[in-house]
Amino acid sequence: MVSHETACILNTSDEEAHIVLLIYFSDRHPAGPYQISIPPRRTKHIRFNNLEDPEPIPKDTDYASVFSSDVPVIVQHSRLDSRQPENALLTTIAYSE
Amino acid sequence: MVSHETACILNTSDEEAHIVLLIYFSDRHPAGPYQISIPPRRTKHIRFNNLEDPEPIPKDTDYASVFSSDVPVIVQHSRLDSRQPENALLTTIAYSE
Amino acid sequence: MVSHETACILNTSDEEAHIVLLIYFSDRHPAGPYQISIPPRRTKHIRFNNLEDPEPIPKDTDYASVFSSDVPVIVQHSRLDSRQPENALLTTIAYSE
Amino acid sequence: MVSHETACILNTSDEEAHIVLLIYFSDRHPAGPYQISIPPRRTKHIRFNNLEDPEPIPKDTDYASVFSSDVPVIVQHSRLDSRQPENALLTTIAYSE
Repeated sequence: MVSHETACILNTSDEEAHIVLLIYFSDRHPAGPYQISIPPRRTKHIRFNNLEDPEPIPKDTDYASVFSSDVPVIVQHSRLDSRQPENALLTTIAYSE
Repeated sequence: MVSHETACILNTSDEEAHIVLLIYFSDRHPAGPYQISIPPRRTKHIRFNNLEDPEPIPKDTDYASVFSSDVPVIVQHSRLDSRQPENALLTTIAYSE
Repeated sequence: MVSHETACILNTSDEEAHIVLLIYFSDRHPAGPYQISIPPRRTKHIRFNNLEDPEPIPKDTDYASVFSSDVPVIVQHSRLDSRQPENALLTTIAYSE
Repeated sequence: MVSHETACILNTSDEEAHIVLLIYFSDRHPAGPYQISIPPRRTKHIRFNNLEDPEPIPKDTDYASVFSSDVPVIVQHSRLDSRQPENALLTTIAYSE
């Protein structure tokens, strides 16, 4: 089993959402910006391990993510952490307006 | 074991709450609207798999849900996802005012 | 294993907090009010199964809880639900101001 | 397995964040203040069991934590509670502005 983190983004508006994702670390400058687009009235799942442009996210490092969007979207972030003997599932909802 | 998602809606007001539920997908137009009524000062559990009017929710598709209400209600949404080898329990509270 | 639900209440103010708890159901009028006091700058754990005045909470019924306080407090509500084959842990933070 | 509680703090601002942490109990005065600094655009993980100045946190006592910061930060608090037969994972996000 490998760790995976995903973000589910919901755009309920009638316009395409253009999202900028930044990844923060404890010991280096932030990674990104990653560009994500969501069509109007659609959802999109982002798998952090699949992010590659401008750089992949280091696999064994803790990080935090911040989404900025030009239209209001809802971001639900889930983490299944296999590095701990107990599986840690973190889920959070953030509103960007 | 099958996946199930439920929403618990709480109406603390003295009036019946009329709720409209929309379901969003990544690759098709939203499903619904589903009509839900909650008596004053009562709770109601909604099981998404049981929604049928105007259409059932596809069983193997990720989706997001949005509740709109004519009186303030509290929605607690839970998901037990059996498609992953690890059970993923997501829970969220949303306030609609 | 039995179900238990607890609420952890935090009063960071310099005054005693007087809290009124109401319990809502799907098919009957709300239970309570239950009276709870928290000294200044202290926490208190409430175990719902131990509530007795004015009435105990029915053990096999879903319910929702609402806390009202005369000073701002923070309520963290946890549920470990043994009635499902999978353990459902729900946790929520509510701010009362 | 031992209990551990951690807080992940994210400082997205361009200034160093100076944070004061207070720990509240049910039956004694609060512990702290604990001083924490986060560089600009960095994250930091706090392990509560490692806090020592001005005093360690008692290991078998329930407590609540409050973070105050001079610049807006995001605090994500996780608890893995080994005292219950079932592992209780609580996670919460708080915004300080």
